[in-house]
Amino acid sequence: MLRAKVIGNVWASRRLEQIPAGAFLEVEIDGGAKLIAFDVLGSGIGETVLVATGSVAASWFPGPVSPPIDALIIGSIDPVPSTTDTNTATSRKK
Amino acid sequence: MLRAKVIGNVWASRRLEQIPAGAFLEVEIDGGAKLIAFDVLGSGIGETVLVATGSVAASWFPGPVSPPIDALIIGSIDPVPSTTDTNTATSRKK
Amino acid sequence: MLRAKVIGNVWASRRLEQIPAGAFLEVEIDGGAKLIAFDVLGSGIGETVLVATGSVAASWFPGPVSPPIDALIIGSIDPVPSTTDTNTATSRKK
Amino acid sequence: MLRAKVIGNVWASRRLEQIPAGAFLEVEIDGGAKLIAFDVLGSGIGETVLVATGSVAASWFPGPVSPPIDALIIGSIDPVPSTTDTNTATSRKK
Amino acid sequence: MLRAKVIGNVWASRRLEQIPAGAFLEVEIDGGAKLIAFDVLGSGIGETVLVATGSVAASWFPGPVSPPIDALIIGSIDPVPSTTDTNTATSRKK
Repeated sequence: MLRAKVIGNVWASRRLEQIPAGAFLEVEIDGGAKLIAFDVLGSGIGETVLVATGSVAASWFPGPVSPPIDALIIGSIDPVPSTTDTNTATSRKK
Repeated sequence: MLRAKVIGNVWASRRLEQIPAGAFLEVEIDGGAKLIAFDVLGSGIGETVLVATGSVAASWFPGPVSPPIDALIIGSIDPVPSTTDTNTATSRKK
Repeated sequence: MLRAKVIGNVWASRRLEQIPAGAFLEVEIDGGAKLIAFDVLGSGIGETVLVATGSVAASWFPGPVSPPIDALIIGSIDPVPSTTDTNTATSRKK
Repeated sequence: MLRAKVIGNVWASRRLEQIPAGAFLEVEIDGGAKLIAFDVLGSGIGETVLVATGSVAASWFPGPVSPPIDALIIGSIDPVPSTTDTNTATSRKK
Repeated sequence: MLRAKVIGNVWASRRLEQIPAGAFLEVEIDGGAKLIAFDVLGSGIGETVLVATGSVAASWFPGPVSPPIDALIIGSIDPVPSTTDTNTATSRKK
């Protein structure tokens, strides 16, 4: 999986009919590469997420036919207090 | 999925018989890499699209045997008015 | 799919038995990366081809068991007269 | 497979329900790229492991439905005392 | 497939039980990237081989369940006398 940060929404009104309910979110991977991942968890902009890529993303969807989705947000990474990651650690301060 | 811009057509008269009806379009991904994606949506040159890659592209096609297609345009990304993306935003000007 | 140019043959006398009839061709992708693709179309050195990669290459082969082939030439790209691509355009000269 | 070193844990409390028991470990591949791999072997930080990526990771899990896991630690690489692995180049000196 | 040179062995005593008989070999791809490929052909260090990656590697193994193997040596590339590939041609000198 890839650790990525959600940076935006993407809308595609004209699209293949087999695409399920959910959102296309643009995510930025460590290093700067960008992907469009499908989201069913309601992830928000700025959130750090776990993205699975390839056919495992499509296989997650139930039903006999898999949708043409090759990147899926499978979880939201918990923020951890950290001396090296000050951006995500500040929420625990008092 | 990858966000990409359609930059050209590719014709392959001599090809495997299992390739379905549709077009081969050359697309350029953010960062400059190029791919040939299969299109069944009638996408045009200059359009920004969503490309799914890998076996999910082949699996989208109905029938017992999947064609040897590893990149499929699954949607056309809606243009959004944006201060940072002046190329796609100018179509809404009056 | 990748647009690539055939640059050589590769022979592998000692190999897994499940490899079908056809040729291993070395191809160079735009940007300089090289792959070995399987060819059943009789593609020749210097030809520009369309290469599908991943499991869709294996799935193309008929039969209950797919061979361990992860790159397949699926078509030969038609040469187009072009002002920017003089290499492929010269074959129509008389 | 990729040779990688475990460099940390990742927790994702909010995640898809289909994710099996096990740990998400962050691993660093030779060259510096980072991945999140799923671990069922109890691998620890600092350990050098073998990571399989893609759909084979999901297929390893038993049951009719594969989880959306695209990277799996399949083994722990044995540490080897080695004269040739200090830099791999020094053995040719005379 | 990738053309690669076998550069070492990798042992993983602690590993998933589903890994079949064979060897893990470290290979170096043109350009310098390294992979760990599974070998059932008895390939030796220094040999130039053809590596298939992805799920086709796992699918090659017989039986109802595919092992979590994502890179398989499918053949040994025949050495060819070549004016441009002096590295592989000089090894027979005494």
